[in-house]
Amino acid sequence: MKVAVLTGGVGGAKFVLGLQHCAGIERLTAIVNTGDDFRHLGLHISPDIDTLLYTLSGQSDAVQGWGRAGERWAFMAALKALGGPDWFNLGDGDLALHVWRSDQLRQGKTPSAITTEIAECWGIGATILPMSDDPVATWLDTDEGSLAFQNYFVERQCRPVVGKIRFEGAAGAKPAPGVVAAIEEADMVFIAPSNPYLSVDPLLAVRDIATALRNTAAPVIAISPLVGGKAVKGPTTKLMSELGIDPDNRAIAAHYEGIIDGMIHDAGDAGPASLPACATATLMSDLSDKIRVAQAACDFARTLAG
Amino acid sequence: MKVAVLTGGVGGAKFVLGLQHCAGIERLTAIVNTGDDFRHLGLHISPDIDTLLYTLSGQSDAVQGWGRAGERWAFMAALKALGGPDWFNLGDGDLALHVWRSDQLRQGKTPSAITTEIAECWGIGATILPMSDDPVATWLDTDEGSLAFQNYFVERQCRPVVGKIRFEGAAGAKPAPGVVAAIEEADMVFIAPSNPYLSVDPLLAVRDIATALRNTAAPVIAISPLVGGKAVKGPTTKLMSELGIDPDNRAIAAHYEGIIDGMIHDAGDAGPASLPACATATLMSDLSDKIRVAQAACDFARTLAG
Repeated sequence: MKVAVLTGGVGGAKFVLGLQHCAGIERLTAIVNTGDDFRHLGLHISPDIDTLLYTLSGQSDAVQGWGRAGERWAFMAALKALGGPDWFNLGDGDLALHVWRSDQLRQGKTPSAITTEIAECWGIGATILPMSDDPVATWLDTDEGSLAFQNYFVERQCRPVVGKIRFEGAAGAKPAPGVVAAIEEADMVFIAPSNPYLSVDPLLAVRDIATALRNTAAPVIAISPLVGGKAVKGPTTKLMSELGIDPDNRAIAAHYEGIIDGMIHDAGDAGPASLPACATATLMSDLSDKIRVAQAACDFARTLAG
Repeated sequence: MKVAVLTGGVGGAKFVLGLQHCAGIERLTAIVNTGDDFRHLGLHISPDIDTLLYTLSGQSDAVQGWGRAGERWAFMAALKALGGPDWFNLGDGDLALHVWRSDQLRQGKTPSAITTEIAECWGIGATILPMSDDPVATWLDTDEGSLAFQNYFVERQCRPVVGKIRFEGAAGAKPAPGVVAAIEEADMVFIAPSNPYLSVDPLLAVRDIATALRNTAAPVIAISPLVGGKAVKGPTTKLMSELGIDPDNRAIAAHYEGIIDGMIHDAGDAGPASLPACATATLMSDLSDKIRVAQAACDFARTLAG
């Protein structure tokens, strides 16, 4: 069985980790949001790719949800002593990934080639693909002006009120090599429980990705990021309210209309009425939760593929 | 009293630290070799400037002689796990200096402006000036081919046999702002006990620096790097032998002919016959040694200034 999954940050990575442990998946391809990528201190940082790399290789910090387990912060302390910016935390070990990737990019390698090499180096069985090798940058028009994603998300901690979200470069961006084929060849496609507006929309804004999703005969299933009516982490419902959208699964299903064939949602929330849905406990605390949710998604997809 | 000192790496930094503690110096300017500067992993690294910054701000590692005290190595471990190069050690805290400087350079600041800001940030009283804001790169023609300085010095640990040393870019390099004025205004000028061929010659290869040294009426005093006939650290005598030069103070004085007016040398070594010399114990283990050697150099310069 071939599985493709579109994913963003921490919640998405948990689901992909679950998929990695599901039986019967011979090929798993994660197609990852790069709208959060940014340059900081001259380094190219790719947070969603890194979260997935750390999660699938067993190096992620389970407590804080991002970065590496056992991380230390001597670099940040020294940077602060130099008067450098301290709003974006870069761990001592994590820095290696950013410095290494930045240097490889400067030498002309593509983001997808670099990601593939790192995944192989760390023994990750799944294929991890950035959605595009072309730069796409998520910008938010807010009551504090236009903010690049990380300035909104990390520096301002999602406090500004969002009016509009834009994905600069997405219109002209080509999917990275292998992305469209992974969707076309997949027996089932998942949209991980990532923020639909910030983490998944950048992927759908790459035209050939959206087209491949619309055209595939395989079932496309979204796993709702809502658990008990709220996102486990991040500003999903705050953002939905600000955008004038009811923060529920009906709205999320409507948002994905034409793309998805079904939805997995938390048993504590009402499902969408407009399409097949499967209710289960979707909070993914430990590995067994992740595997269970991923397995439920696979089973549900199989019933839809019928 | 105004003092200018030309300096390179660890030995030079010890001497400058001594000068910083000498009474009666109202202005101390260190003019620093940048021929060792190189790009590594996309970072601009300036080892001699950094050694001096760490030494004068009390952050240097007294045991290993370079880098920061209490340094940790999570970055290097993670870089190695990525298959990155591990021949040049970058400490977790030290990285902040390289990342910060590289980013400031990219934003258009000069090396000298960045150095001044860091020195001020760390409360260093002395003025630290890179010899030039223009790139100068030390290359060695060896029995293993042409090697950039760090590849010879760190990666190959000075093992190759050196035939010739070149300073690429030096002919066209202008001294950094303040360098020539510091020499012209100084009441005494020192050449620190750094490797004459690798650390001091790049400075002298910048024409306007050599001219200022030749023209100044102030005494110019070299402190010999030999202690008991050998360099405390580094390949000075090995290099001198390979270049067909007797590894003694006579040869070092001849090397600096036309530049220096006197030499401080270790009491265990023969002095040069060709110019005034002052013998003292020049091994600088603790701070009191450094201050004593620096004070001896100042006193000797005063006698020459008559």
